[in-house]
Amino acid sequence: MNRIHQRPIYRFANGRFEQKQDVVATEYPITVKLNGKELLTIVCTPEYIEDMVVGFLASERIIVNYDDIKDIRLEEELGFISIESNKTFPFFEQLQNKRYITSCCGMSRQGFVFANDALTAKRMIEKNVHLTPEECISLMENMDTQADLFQQTGGVHIAALCDKNNLMLTRMDIGRHNALDKIYGYCLRNNISVKDKVIVFSGRISSEILLKVSKIGCEIVLSKSAPTHLAINLADELGITAVGFIRGQSFNVYTHPERIIH
Amino acid sequence: MNRIHQRPIYRFANGRFEQKQDVVATEYPITVKLNGKELLTIVCTPEYIEDMVVGFLASERIIVNYDDIKDIRLEEELGFISIESNKTFPFFEQLQNKRYITSCCGMSRQGFVFANDALTAKRMIEKNVHLTPEECISLMENMDTQADLFQQTGGVHIAALCDKNNLMLTRMDIGRHNALDKIYGYCLRNNISVKDKVIVFSGRISSEILLKVSKIGCEIVLSKSAPTHLAINLADELGITAVGFIRGQSFNVYTHPERIIH
Repeated sequence: MNRIHQRPIYRFANGRFEQKQDVVATEYPITVKLNGKELLTIVCTPEYIEDMVVGFLASERIIVNYDDIKDIRLEEELGFISIESNKTFPFFEQLQNKRYITSCCGMSRQGFVFANDALTAKRMIEKNVHLTPEECISLMENMDTQADLFQQTGGVHIAALCDKNNLMLTRMDIGRHNALDKIYGYCLRNNISVKDKVIVFSGRISSEILLKVSKIGCEIVLSKSAPTHLAINLADELGITAVGFIRGQSFNVYTHPERIIH
Repeated sequence: MNRIHQRPIYRFANGRFEQKQDVVATEYPITVKLNGKELLTIVCTPEYIEDMVVGFLASERIIVNYDDIKDIRLEEELGFISIESNKTFPFFEQLQNKRYITSCCGMSRQGFVFANDALTAKRMIEKNVHLTPEECISLMENMDTQADLFQQTGGVHIAALCDKNNLMLTRMDIGRHNALDKIYGYCLRNNISVKDKVIVFSGRISSEILLKVSKIGCEIVLSKSAPTHLAINLADELGITAVGFIRGQSFNVYTHPERIIH
């Protein structure tokens, strides 16, 4: 399993577009089975998977020592790792009974692992929004200007709902998803149509961020950072234009470049 | 509830330390109750909380329209938001039955919400490691040099286990925690003592990252980015030296400065 993928993109730099090969990070979902029962799915970079699962089990006190594990079997192509242990797992039940969303991200899922993602992710067939390269760059610059908390503490993500020219709503959060949920909830509560809007996001476009954009119902997502390979595949499939690495006067278009005027 | 906190830190710049006030981001845990039953806890920046919860419920298809919600009551000081709805929630059961760790972070918890955090987080009373400012800066520079995947794709987190002078183990992952779990698992499987070791991390020190460092059993964490307020409080309590914003020849010491020689 490669930890990176090669992928053709459209790069805008020095005032013009060119097609080139780019390197994107793999997002690999691996499901942990403990004594034959599915424990959880971890999305990761596919290397040192056994170490990661052992470290995770120890930090959650599902095991205490490495000796507690009798067998580890990785089926990399299938996306499973099976752990056999003859110890009991005092916190296993508790772990199953309470959900917790961390400051960094959420409980969202990769691809369409769950039925509700397939139901709530919207496929964007129409092309209601078109942006020029200058509009992409200008929206990102506008967001940077508004990012006061970010500049103060360096520790938050920022998302904005925009039309072609203006930021309409800017939300910040230490949690990547929360900033987008704050926008989505505002639109629902105030009956604001997102049909012709764009999402601008400060952080990486992971598959979960891409899914969130799709659930909100926006056709274009602009980011300062890189998308993952899985996010690009989802954007392809869901009809979303993903633009990344908007820095200075350049950026990359990863999917559906037909909404970026060139 | 303030979205930022003022906090005294030790800043190293221009070759010397000075005490100054710094601004850190709040991490605020809010528990969502749906019709009287606890659904989940979200850690967030404490603003626009109602919007965030509505957006979250809609994107998980727990509600479909805003009208499905009959009442929202935020008890900010208590950390609860109560949602009343007389719709059924088809995916609620499913949501409770399967855990999923995203690429961005994990299932970890804030503070000591759960018993296993209190059990697995280790309080660092001893002072086995002392670093000079030059060693802090040099370890971060060494990590940057090794960060090939990061430089290629801009989308991964990097963690390293170090002694005073050298990186011993460097791991990268699109998931913040995964990089640390890969280190922890390696140490457990190869019986490597972490007593006199330091963790260097590329990303923000959230409370969950701080807890992970504590579970691994390291006394010092060095980061390029900012810690949150909750992470600082935990580091204080757990006896961990948290050093952030290591950029160029300067950095901030947030907690337990006695391990940084000055």
